[in-house]
Amino acid sequence: MNTASICTIGDEILIGQIVDTNSSHIARELESIGVKVRYMTSIGDVRENILSELGRCLDETDIVIVTGGLGPTKDDITKDALLQLSGSSGYRESKQQMAHVERILTARGIPMLDTNRAQALVPDKCTVLENKLGTAPGMAFHGLGRKGTSALYSLPGVPFEAEGLLPSVIDDIRAHFSLEKITHRTIVTFGIPESTLAKRIEAWEDALPSNIKLAYLPNPTIGVRLRLSQNGGDADFEPYVQQLRSLIGDAIYGEGDDTLQKVIGDKLRAAGKTLSLAESCTGGHLSQLITSVSGCSDYYKGSVTSYANEVKTGVLGVPSEIIAEHGAVSEECVREMAKGVMKLMGTDYSAATSGIAGPLGATPGKPVGTAWLAAARRNADGSVDVATECVHFASSRAINIERFASHALDLLRKQI
Amino acid sequence: MNTASICTIGDEILIGQIVDTNSSHIARELESIGVKVRYMTSIGDVRENILSELGRCLDETDIVIVTGGLGPTKDDITKDALLQLSGSSGYRESKQQMAHVERILTARGIPMLDTNRAQALVPDKCTVLENKLGTAPGMAFHGLGRKGTSALYSLPGVPFEAEGLLPSVIDDIRAHFSLEKITHRTIVTFGIPESTLAKRIEAWEDALPSNIKLAYLPNPTIGVRLRLSQNGGDADFEPYVQQLRSLIGDAIYGEGDDTLQKVIGDKLRAAGKTLSLAESCTGGHLSQLITSVSGCSDYYKGSVTSYANEVKTGVLGVPSEIIAEHGAVSEECVREMAKGVMKLMGTDYSAATSGIAGPLGATPGKPVGTAWLAAARRNADGSVDVATECVHFASSRAINIERFASHALDLLRKQI
Repeated sequence: MNTASICTIGDEILIGQIVDTNSSHIARELESIGVKVRYMTSIGDVRENILSELGRCLDETDIVIVTGGLGPTKDDITKDALLQLSGSSGYRESKQQMAHVERILTARGIPMLDTNRAQALVPDKCTVLENKLGTAPGMAFHGLGRKGTSALYSLPGVPFEAEGLLPSVIDDIRAHFSLEKITHRTIVTFGIPESTLAKRIEAWEDALPSNIKLAYLPNPTIGVRLRLSQNGGDADFEPYVQQLRSLIGDAIYGEGDDTLQKVIGDKLRAAGKTLSLAESCTGGHLSQLITSVSGCSDYYKGSVTSYANEVKTGVLGVPSEIIAEHGAVSEECVREMAKGVMKLMGTDYSAATSGIAGPLGATPGKPVGTAWLAAARRNADGSVDVATECVHFASSRAINIERFASHALDLLRKQI
Repeated sequence: MNTASICTIGDEILIGQIVDTNSSHIARELESIGVKVRYMTSIGDVRENILSELGRCLDETDIVIVTGGLGPTKDDITKDALLQLSGSSGYRESKQQMAHVERILTARGIPMLDTNRAQALVPDKCTVLENKLGTAPGMAFHGLGRKGTSALYSLPGVPFEAEGLLPSVIDDIRAHFSLEKITHRTIVTFGIPESTLAKRIEAWEDALPSNIKLAYLPNPTIGVRLRLSQNGGDADFEPYVQQLRSLIGDAIYGEGDDTLQKVIGDKLRAAGKTLSLAESCTGGHLSQLITSVSGCSDYYKGSVTSYANEVKTGVLGVPSEIIAEHGAVSEECVREMAKGVMKLMGTDYSAATSGIAGPLGATPGKPVGTAWLAAARRNADGSVDVATECVHFASSRAINIERFASHALDLLRKQI
């Protein structure tokens, strides 16, 4: 099995200004093609440290992926270290990269500076990996390390640029290393905690053939993904997935990279139905999730964030007596919010949220982390069905908002 | 200056299941007391790797902070490695820790198991740091490494437990090392790219006294933060900040941890004014940013996400001729959206967005990444001023949306 190391370069990581999310993303991709990550390291923009750390990585692992240390205001210490490590004799100008830097700067109306021009210079032994999303190129080097067979990939530190380059890196790894074939199938669940899920499918998991492995991939907004893997074979996972369906039921909402918002969108588009949203405590996050899916204008009409009660009554038409009697965080209020936005925007479905994200806003009997959620469906006869749910979480404001929104999407999914 | 390394132990990090946020948090605390983090590493639950990596860290840095590898279901490989590294002769039972484990399990109604009992056993050379939030203790070791003066702190991997133990670690570091004093001041800018900013303040930066350092901390949504630091002194940064103000002008919007949404909120609250939003391409993200600030209900009334044109006309009152003539992505349309939501919700200020986040939706003359932004202000005489701006970005859908929203906030900030 090929081994890898991931190295992040940048003082901003060592002073804790930035959380390194690149390494985790890269590790997931490497794992999915059967490359084992032995370690990750983060070091500063110091030439001698970069040289010794990358030297160690190249000696100890087959594949080294480096992110960071390439921005226009950096001293290009990283590129200089790569020049030396790769035994390049000097820099060459990458015409392709230069044209790309010019194009990007022109589009942004930024004048070309010497520091930008320097970004098109690369060590002569590297292969340039085109970075479509920024000015610093990706670089691939081969034949390095103690064994003379290790590869090094250098990517910019900006997460979406590193992410954008990753498919080229994976392609290059596939071309240069003989990887064992791994097949996967992933089903996605929501609403059952990981430990409960593990208990429920324990006997089934124990009975899996030895060449099929199960991995739990929990994510607070997506849910728990269950990934079946087989090394070196061509497994038919279908029977196992059917067994899981009978054990877990409708907590399973999709496969692979599915998210609640994508599955909801697919269902609505297929049925030719429309959606609107009314948000209070989620403050726009629910709408953001729905609109994170490209093409959502096929089914999504819009939303009202009714933070103030006068917007709940004035724009959404929630009767003021309901708020006076039950409060804004109540089953009665979210029910009216969902019906109100459905009427206002003339949609077939709607969802609504009202709760206390915290840290301020708790009232007697309604602690921080409480939210009421609703999902409404207009039936063929014109009547409206509203499902409601009350949830409690005990996290930070941001995490509470994320969880309220995910649970509202799950409630909506079950209504469609 | 004392140096440190941070080591995270756990297979779940190396397969990318978990993003390591502990290291960043620990690094910030260390930096604030003047300890320099030289590197961070993440390794798996393998005894020989733990021994060699922690050995290296202890030889090369004064302070080593380890997180992870201590849970009740782990094989306690980490604790065994610490026993060996610290030259302990065996385990001793910590009475304090045992009482604590019992208390926690009783409170949760969980029976005491051998694995829990084992958590109260610690290498005899360690000082126990009480973990009030979980069952695995923090541990401090002294007199280690090549120089015989290095310290190692072991913390549980669960982020809130590690965070809870950090003050005890910092106290212990202060007690055992003589730390140099370090002072900082950070100003926050938006709207000038890092490279242009660097060029504009180059001469000023070159003229800074040698004991004052400048760091660029760019962030796509916050902007570029400029941090001045001085080691060992008690600098008056004010004259330098004044010089920066005259060089950069109103691109400076705050200090320290300020964000656009926080600064906007502070200004609105101080003035007793209110805000509403009308979003199209940002799909709720702008509202989410405003509501990410706790206490925003003091000034924020709500928003309309008008994804469909019929919501722009029907709810926000944008004249349909405007959309027919100029399109929804136009200066005329965002202007009407901003005025419409201001009227609908009766607010003093409003902002609006309409653009093409992509990858679908481009039209001739309006490529993906184009957006029109507006920020409206109601004057004392009842008249309304609207500022507009057209922006272009060439990123992924998610990043385009983030940038549209940040630029809309910046436009709004300048209107207030």
